[in-house]
Amino acid sequence: MGERGIELALVGCGRMGHLHGANAAANPRFRIRWCCDANAESARELAASFGARAGQLDDMLADAEVAAVIVATPADVLLETALRCLDAGKPVFCEKPLASGAAELAEAVRRRLVGTPPLFVAFNRRFDRHFDALRRRLMAGEIGTLETLHLVNHDPEAPRAEFVRRSGGLFKDFSIHDFDTAAWLIGEPFTELFAWGSCLIDREIGRLGDIDTAKILLRTGTGRICLVSNSRRTGYGYDQRIEAFGSLGRLAVENRAVDRVVRWSEEGEAGSPIPYAFPDRYDEAYRAELDHFADVVQRETPPRTGARDALNALVLAEAAQRSLAAGAAVRISPESKE
Amino acid sequence: MGERGIELALVGCGRMGHLHGANAAANPRFRIRWCCDANAESARELAASFGARAGQLDDMLADAEVAAVIVATPADVLLETALRCLDAGKPVFCEKPLASGAAELAEAVRRRLVGTPPLFVAFNRRFDRHFDALRRRLMAGEIGTLETLHLVNHDPEAPRAEFVRRSGGLFKDFSIHDFDTAAWLIGEPFTELFAWGSCLIDREIGRLGDIDTAKILLRTGTGRICLVSNSRRTGYGYDQRIEAFGSLGRLAVENRAVDRVVRWSEEGEAGSPIPYAFPDRYDEAYRAELDHFADVVQRETPPRTGARDALNALVLAEAAQRSLAAGAAVRISPESKE
Amino acid sequence: MGERGIELALVGCGRMGHLHGANAAANPRFRIRWCCDANAESARELAASFGARAGQLDDMLADAEVAAVIVATPADVLLETALRCLDAGKPVFCEKPLASGAAELAEAVRRRLVGTPPLFVAFNRRFDRHFDALRRRLMAGEIGTLETLHLVNHDPEAPRAEFVRRSGGLFKDFSIHDFDTAAWLIGEPFTELFAWGSCLIDREIGRLGDIDTAKILLRTGTGRICLVSNSRRTGYGYDQRIEAFGSLGRLAVENRAVDRVVRWSEEGEAGSPIPYAFPDRYDEAYRAELDHFADVVQRETPPRTGARDALNALVLAEAAQRSLAAGAAVRISPESKE
Amino acid sequence: MGERGIELALVGCGRMGHLHGANAAANPRFRIRWCCDANAESARELAASFGARAGQLDDMLADAEVAAVIVATPADVLLETALRCLDAGKPVFCEKPLASGAAELAEAVRRRLVGTPPLFVAFNRRFDRHFDALRRRLMAGEIGTLETLHLVNHDPEAPRAEFVRRSGGLFKDFSIHDFDTAAWLIGEPFTELFAWGSCLIDREIGRLGDIDTAKILLRTGTGRICLVSNSRRTGYGYDQRIEAFGSLGRLAVENRAVDRVVRWSEEGEAGSPIPYAFPDRYDEAYRAELDHFADVVQRETPPRTGARDALNALVLAEAAQRSLAAGAAVRISPESKE
Repeated sequence: MGERGIELALVGCGRMGHLHGANAAANPRFRIRWCCDANAESARELAASFGARAGQLDDMLADAEVAAVIVATPADVLLETALRCLDAGKPVFCEKPLASGAAELAEAVRRRLVGTPPLFVAFNRRFDRHFDALRRRLMAGEIGTLETLHLVNHDPEAPRAEFVRRSGGLFKDFSIHDFDTAAWLIGEPFTELFAWGSCLIDREIGRLGDIDTAKILLRTGTGRICLVSNSRRTGYGYDQRIEAFGSLGRLAVENRAVDRVVRWSEEGEAGSPIPYAFPDRYDEAYRAELDHFADVVQRETPPRTGARDALNALVLAEAAQRSLAAGAAVRISPESKE
Repeated sequence: MGERGIELALVGCGRMGHLHGANAAANPRFRIRWCCDANAESARELAASFGARAGQLDDMLADAEVAAVIVATPADVLLETALRCLDAGKPVFCEKPLASGAAELAEAVRRRLVGTPPLFVAFNRRFDRHFDALRRRLMAGEIGTLETLHLVNHDPEAPRAEFVRRSGGLFKDFSIHDFDTAAWLIGEPFTELFAWGSCLIDREIGRLGDIDTAKILLRTGTGRICLVSNSRRTGYGYDQRIEAFGSLGRLAVENRAVDRVVRWSEEGEAGSPIPYAFPDRYDEAYRAELDHFADVVQRETPPRTGARDALNALVLAEAAQRSLAAGAAVRISPESKE
Repeated sequence: MGERGIELALVGCGRMGHLHGANAAANPRFRIRWCCDANAESARELAASFGARAGQLDDMLADAEVAAVIVATPADVLLETALRCLDAGKPVFCEKPLASGAAELAEAVRRRLVGTPPLFVAFNRRFDRHFDALRRRLMAGEIGTLETLHLVNHDPEAPRAEFVRRSGGLFKDFSIHDFDTAAWLIGEPFTELFAWGSCLIDREIGRLGDIDTAKILLRTGTGRICLVSNSRRTGYGYDQRIEAFGSLGRLAVENRAVDRVVRWSEEGEAGSPIPYAFPDRYDEAYRAELDHFADVVQRETPPRTGARDALNALVLAEAAQRSLAAGAAVRISPESKE
Repeated sequence: MGERGIELALVGCGRMGHLHGANAAANPRFRIRWCCDANAESARELAASFGARAGQLDDMLADAEVAAVIVATPADVLLETALRCLDAGKPVFCEKPLASGAAELAEAVRRRLVGTPPLFVAFNRRFDRHFDALRRRLMAGEIGTLETLHLVNHDPEAPRAEFVRRSGGLFKDFSIHDFDTAAWLIGEPFTELFAWGSCLIDREIGRLGDIDTAKILLRTGTGRICLVSNSRRTGYGYDQRIEAFGSLGRLAVENRAVDRVVRWSEEGEAGSPIPYAFPDRYDEAYRAELDHFADVVQRETPPRTGARDALNALVLAEAAQRSLAAGAAVRISPESKE
């Protein structure tokens, strides 16, 4: 019973704050003590629903009872907020990509982001049961030597212009997940990257200088190649698939349908829809992240992913931006990775 | 080249005659020489399409060049026609169930139907690549000892009253296939049978004293149980499946879709329809039957299925009729099988 | 927050007690206050793991703070225990089949089992997301009029002799789920039943007078037919499927694999195993049952299933026993259902 | 009957000659009259099996009875041979890619390859029932506007060095199919191409200056992107898939297994293997090609694919070679396409 009740603060009461907050409230290992947000009203509302206090970041950081913090603020203040919590001695759970630029993040890593108190950067794909099973089977050699990878990460519907404007662009906001997943699976550094992007879905996105459709190729020094396919709109839910081709065969993660009901009519067999978006697709993963964070806080388990992984993904995202601008393959320089 | 061109007569120019005729015309091992039908006009038309002669049964039987006969007449004259061809020394390919009653067929078997010239009773399921693969794997012990079987045989749409009236009833016309398939797969005699039938699809069928929906259980002396599920209408094509449960696992034949295209929309994944009816589902099997018949005629290969199999299936069909009438399980008496 | 913390007693600390106890401990709506078991040591151990008290049934019933009871005792004392809790004014959650005989249960129903305090008999299939989705779509008319049903309920491995001896037999212990599910789906009373059983898996089961393999047919007054297929051992996990055939098509629930990883090798495509047994297959359903029970206790929601459903299933199980003994179809007399 | 028996010559008696010859022999619309090959013994053997004559190309071309020619010679003499047959007034069926270089082919197209007698360049994917169904549904707007395409074309096992040496390289020998398929599906010209290739499977292939693994991106002027994935070895058969992503959803062609048998064991569900290589996967397509060629010869149907399609595919293959050499995206110049 001693493991019950990590006193938790939630900083950032938007969509992700609500999601992580609800999971923490349902998890007996946590007790939500504070909700903080730049918008005091948002903090108050969410705090009320959890029976927690609402307040300013400083008040929360001054509370010695707070044993852990979830930082779910907008991307532009995420790094700064995380640093302040760590400086106050609080273990931090935060969302990717942690910083808006690789240089800034590399600097922060050098100064403080690795070590104690622990910083856990939650890449949800790594906590997905299906992706994790694929990786374990890859590592176990089920398909021999891995040669190439295809990652499909397509969102159900294009975000609104306002979101796009503040998102950092497709590569840093969305493809970032795939850069981390690819690195996690491939087992050696990517040395080159080529990216093509188009604006096929929503012209407004193009007017904002962003793209909504991309195919990105990454290559390692030994010649392994990974495709990342991104789209901002599927028309059929959240398409999340991996194919791994190896010397002895293929391992893949297929989409799962929301249930196992099938219907046969004269048009043929029809299954059920796939989860529509990330909260449904990665529901288990978000709960598993939180459990892992409890282990990090209570049992001194090192975080499975941290600032170095975030930096690695960010370096690839910036390489993709350079490749797109240049219309050419770019090298991932070793310097940029440290 | 010596195997080309078995001179073939086609007796019965209805639906099945057309089907087998078209296959024979496309098979270089056969040359269609005669088309015969009680309806002279039907015979003439079909004969013209094949560049063959039309005529009476007697004329054809008197033609010494005819080396083989396909008998595809209505059920009520099938046995008599087949016997006349055999009496004239011609090898015969005929459709199930060969006779309208087991007693009559048993008598014919005793007199002549086994031996020379060969009689091949074409049960299409046995020539289906999928069902045959399942049987080979069963026999090879892939799932250990076979314990129970489920056969699903559901037709796409109910036949017209006129067909039902002359069909001999659901068990002899339709379930007969499953009785043969079950016997082929189970590997030991069925000793008991229980049948329930309902008229749920078309009241006209009930008025004619027939049923359109049935669940039949068959049991062997060692306690193995087989379910046969029959329906005259699916709403989704021709449902043809087998499940075999054994001591080590399960082997099944699933329906195949007409193509491997799948579509994902917000309603989920949708495949293509399954074949609508028997000519499409068993197209390969009908061609394989014909090839087997060529082997029977040219190479003295014994027919894979003959009058004894037809009799066995008919005995089970009559047992089903008795069970249905009695509302009770009935024994399959060993006598009735000889 | 007012809904947190129903003070709960757990009576019966065996396998199902552990399962429901773990779910209650993880559910913020419950606080486990008591664990009771005829075996005091079992009660103490489980109580310790939850930080609850261990004690006798009487002590627990005398505790006015106890707001609800889960009864998970062996079948032979289940009804009596449930009645004592109800008499003490406690709402009860209990496992099927509630009683060992229909007559006994019918009597108890007449006396007390319907009304207040509420009795919830937890049939896990009804709380399964997949089965429930199938039922909703059936009710919505997606396949027109329901005509026939196939339920496959096959356990992964045969129970030990000791379990079999106390189980009440296959029909009351295992098929009982299917009788309830069939009744839930078919939408009108079953009037006839035919059952065949064999002992194919473990001779010891036969020596104890029980069977390990069964095919049961049930029919309604309008001629709809339901097949129940039961086996005590699959060799491949817990096979839980439903097929519903209607006038416009087919709706089915397929097994789900434990994850969505597939592997392609020269032997073909291979998926992941299905859940091995009921705790894995119905994990979500058990949690949903408990949530429903919280609604029953806190919000006066009527139990979705109660003593009448248990009685109905038991009547069918006893009819199956009679049919098996008689080797004939039996009628489900309307009297026996009240 | 008048359509029977196009007098056919088969030039090139290697693997593809055998394949097309066997199909022609089984197709009542053709009669094989000649077999020709630089290796007289090969020609004699194949001719004997068909009851045809063996001889030199000149003898065959002088035979006025020859109504059509299948040219299945090695790639390096294919164009020259086809031209000689056309010059002799014979309609020609030939294999891709027709010529070893785009410039040479462009010149031949200008001089003679379009018009009469007809030249049919058989791209087997276009005659595949599954791919064709996907295309029809794309064209019908089932997924709205097509945005991106993924083509997977992976061979079962790496060819021997000798084959690689004469093959023209991966792009012209193998990817050429995908370039044609992509052009057929995308509906507008590709304007840019980027290719990465690696030698991961067989070092000998690398020593010969070729690659065995490639990912190729093609883009149209409107920003649509197509991925082509190629590998010389799968370990699981011939992987032939297409995914099309559109504004309203996704259409895909999955691999088909050789049969519909599935087995459930404790490891999970296992299907049957997919066809091992092109003769099995495209068996129907090869027969359909031949039927189309009969229509071209007998009914003056224009060939569905001809020299311009071969040229288009060859232009893309050469662009891939340039991109690979440059490590950069290359433009598909409009001139090179005429």
